[in-house]
Amino acid sequence: MKQLNIKIIISFLGLTSMLNGLFMLLAVPFSAYNDEPEQWGILKAGITTIIIGFSLWFFNRNAKKSLGKKEGYVIVTFGWLMLSFTGTLPYFFTGAIPNFTNAFFETISGYTTTGASILTDIESMPKGILFWRSATQWIGGMGIIVLTVAILPMLGIGGMQLFMAEAPGPSADKMHPRITETAKRLWLIYFSLTFTEFFLLKFAGMTWFDAINHAMTTMSTGGFSTKSASLAHWNGTPVVQYIITAFMIIAGTNFILTYFALKGKIRKVFNSEEFKYYFLGIILITLLLSFVIANYQDPNLVTSINHPNPWGSTESAFRHALFQVTSVLTTTGFVTADFTMWSSFATMIMFSLFFIGGSAGSTSGGIKVVRHIIMIKNSFLEFKKLLHPNAIIPVRYNGSGVPKNIVYNILAFFVLYMGIFIVSSIILTFLGLDFKSAIGATASSLGNIGPAIGSVSPVDNYAHLSIAAKWFCAFLMLVGRLEIFTVLILLTPFFWKKN
Amino acid sequence: MKQLNIKIIISFLGLTSMLNGLFMLLAVPFSAYNDEPEQWGILKAGITTIIIGFSLWFFNRNAKKSLGKKEGYVIVTFGWLMLSFTGTLPYFFTGAIPNFTNAFFETISGYTTTGASILTDIESMPKGILFWRSATQWIGGMGIIVLTVAILPMLGIGGMQLFMAEAPGPSADKMHPRITETAKRLWLIYFSLTFTEFFLLKFAGMTWFDAINHAMTTMSTGGFSTKSASLAHWNGTPVVQYIITAFMIIAGTNFILTYFALKGKIRKVFNSEEFKYYFLGIILITLLLSFVIANYQDPNLVTSINHPNPWGSTESAFRHALFQVTSVLTTTGFVTADFTMWSSFATMIMFSLFFIGGSAGSTSGGIKVVRHIIMIKNSFLEFKKLLHPNAIIPVRYNGSGVPKNIVYNILAFFVLYMGIFIVSSIILTFLGLDFKSAIGATASSLGNIGPAIGSVSPVDNYAHLSIAAKWFCAFLMLVGRLEIFTVLILLTPFFWKKN
Repeated sequence: MKQLNIKIIISFLGLTSMLNGLFMLLAVPFSAYNDEPEQWGILKAGITTIIIGFSLWFFNRNAKKSLGKKEGYVIVTFGWLMLSFTGTLPYFFTGAIPNFTNAFFETISGYTTTGASILTDIESMPKGILFWRSATQWIGGMGIIVLTVAILPMLGIGGMQLFMAEAPGPSADKMHPRITETAKRLWLIYFSLTFTEFFLLKFAGMTWFDAINHAMTTMSTGGFSTKSASLAHWNGTPVVQYIITAFMIIAGTNFILTYFALKGKIRKVFNSEEFKYYFLGIILITLLLSFVIANYQDPNLVTSINHPNPWGSTESAFRHALFQVTSVLTTTGFVTADFTMWSSFATMIMFSLFFIGGSAGSTSGGIKVVRHIIMIKNSFLEFKKLLHPNAIIPVRYNGSGVPKNIVYNILAFFVLYMGIFIVSSIILTFLGLDFKSAIGATASSLGNIGPAIGSVSPVDNYAHLSIAAKWFCAFLMLVGRLEIFTVLILLTPFFWKKN
Repeated sequence: MKQLNIKIIISFLGLTSMLNGLFMLLAVPFSAYNDEPEQWGILKAGITTIIIGFSLWFFNRNAKKSLGKKEGYVIVTFGWLMLSFTGTLPYFFTGAIPNFTNAFFETISGYTTTGASILTDIESMPKGILFWRSATQWIGGMGIIVLTVAILPMLGIGGMQLFMAEAPGPSADKMHPRITETAKRLWLIYFSLTFTEFFLLKFAGMTWFDAINHAMTTMSTGGFSTKSASLAHWNGTPVVQYIITAFMIIAGTNFILTYFALKGKIRKVFNSEEFKYYFLGIILITLLLSFVIANYQDPNLVTSINHPNPWGSTESAFRHALFQVTSVLTTTGFVTADFTMWSSFATMIMFSLFFIGGSAGSTSGGIKVVRHIIMIKNSFLEFKKLLHPNAIIPVRYNGSGVPKNIVYNILAFFVLYMGIFIVSSIILTFLGLDFKSAIGATASSLGNIGPAIGSVSPVDNYAHLSIAAKWFCAFLMLVGRLEIFTVLILLTPFFWKKN
């Protein structure tokens, strides 16, 4: 392999920044409409970002158009970092988040669609800033779509090839010419669904500002809310919570399947193993949890949430169970209730969902359902192989055999994921968190969820973490969002060797 | 494959019981010497067990001598169960543990060399019963040796073939004729080391009774003690704690390496990758923890342990750190201090050790160091494969390439292990444990350690668990001790199909 083509990398980062700056300008009218003085800070941030981006692109526009795998890895990781650094500017220039660590944490939590927040009083923030905060998640979601459709399958990150086999088009091996086409279609779906959700939320009683923000952060499975209480603010308006739930489920579904569904090919959706298990999982766990919380009595409950006896009725128990299960499973992180108050049993079930994730090809993070399907099927096969060591039985998914190297890579992914989880939990206790908060913050950051357990529970936030702990969580968000390998390969010595 | 040869299985179980009964008779003199009325109960238990065993063997002694893999799996799992059921008789017939669940829990905790206990006042137990309790662990250790040397490699349980390559003898593929020879040698080492440790402990100031019991439960990495405070009882006699530490390290080392060491081939020991990482790991984690606890101040500490300011001096901090690290890593479970009182950072480090385990080919349980080495090396290779997808690079261990199917099986083992860990934690919260205690009890039972975190911390015991929780933990001990696959394959439907 030749030397890294740094010029083309920088030109890509420049283009990304320019795009990011344009999105910042979209936040200006929200501030201007409310006569907020912050409109000028946001404007300044947008223009600065565009200028930075333009300079980077302009001086490298003549770069050789050769893009290898190595350039791909660097562009993805540094692209997200570039977004996250320039994305802090609106917070800075307006003085909304004056502390750099906090601003960076909030921004990368946005672009990685995590939704962990250091803001303690969200309602007091300027509207323009709140819009920008939601926009970072929506942009992150767009990035994830192009990442999963175009980049990860090329880089060979485990399991990502599997969902591409479901992509519309002639055949899986003739993928390259239609990547742009696929990405465009999926962006169109992403945009249309966001708009539809906005419309429904407005119709259900949200203000137009709340509706647009929540629509953006639902479809990106981000989970930033315009209210400190998150969706618990709408505990008196169940229809809002049901709409959000429905769109979280859609956002956690492979967008290619949604494309087929919108084309009327519903059978394709229900033929997908990943969707079947994903959907069935939501239903079954919801029913189990509904039963648990409907029958659980805890005197602390009423004080913990701004609604008297919120799971008194069957409907209420079902709704809150469904909402929390969907929110965590899709890695969105919206909250209507503090699940850590629902008995240890419920907490443990919810915490185990932190390690599942939504569907591949959606905007959700985490390990993802398809990987679990492959791992479970492979475990069964290992038992069979013990009795018949010479039999060659492939793992079957969606009716065809999965190549051995993909299964292998998925297993390695899981081992890495759990290894990172354990080591990171140790590091976070070193940085001052207690046992439960450390495993909670790690699982939540790595899985791009947001709320967790312990002192970062659904009714808490990340403001109290030490500076080092915030940076470390930010790192975990990036590692998790970019499917582990993409970021960590940059830390291996052989990546930087010329050969 | 033909029908399961049930007759030969039963005859094996009979032989196992007879041996078990003979061991029970060994406990009689300990009671008789102290004029305990329980001597008769133990005698009765021994004779009953021998009669049961003899009957099972006698009526099946003409069984066809054909032993396939399936028979192997059934004999191993049911052998351990047979030991555990007959092993409860001394507790029953003497009335020492009148409750069946408690008696079974204590017995299987012995044979699986776990060391989790339901006894709340150990000093009040009859000497004969305490000896029997320690003997169950020592027998369990003997069983593990024959299991790892003779049975698991034949059954193809991941990673177990790797350590056999280190076995003395002509070559790895001509293994079968010398299995009995290897097992005999290792038993001799096991016996000699137990005797040596007994002698040293007596010399260091233990009573002869305490010395023999602790020698048996150290070499089996069991961890039952004759004192309620475990080894914290000897906080005033550091030399005892250092001796136990040294023998825990040996018990957690591949016995084949110990065999070479005793033959003067020290170089072979230090050439073993597993031993290097195992030994280096103990040293490094000990140093880190020594530093942490020497500088950690907590007012609750002094009340939590029967020694004033136990980690005041550097020596004390080092000794307690070394002891706890070794005890958990080798899955022994002896205790000189409550590590859950050493800050969240120390607790998290200790808890992560619950998932490491000692060396393959030793009596220790858990995932084991060799599997971690293979998994870590494989993860690095996966990164390389991302850049060079067509390169075929095997994982290398002790200087040679590891067959792909073994690596594959090790990864599947880890996935299963973690899957069982998560599901079991959920089940234990359902059975009444809180979050921390549930993950602690699961990790500890599955890893055959004993003490854990939460309400089953090093200064607590398992007496307060519900009946169902005790049975479930007992099941986990068995699953963990027999390397997961051996037990769970019996629960798959295809195992019982005739084909």
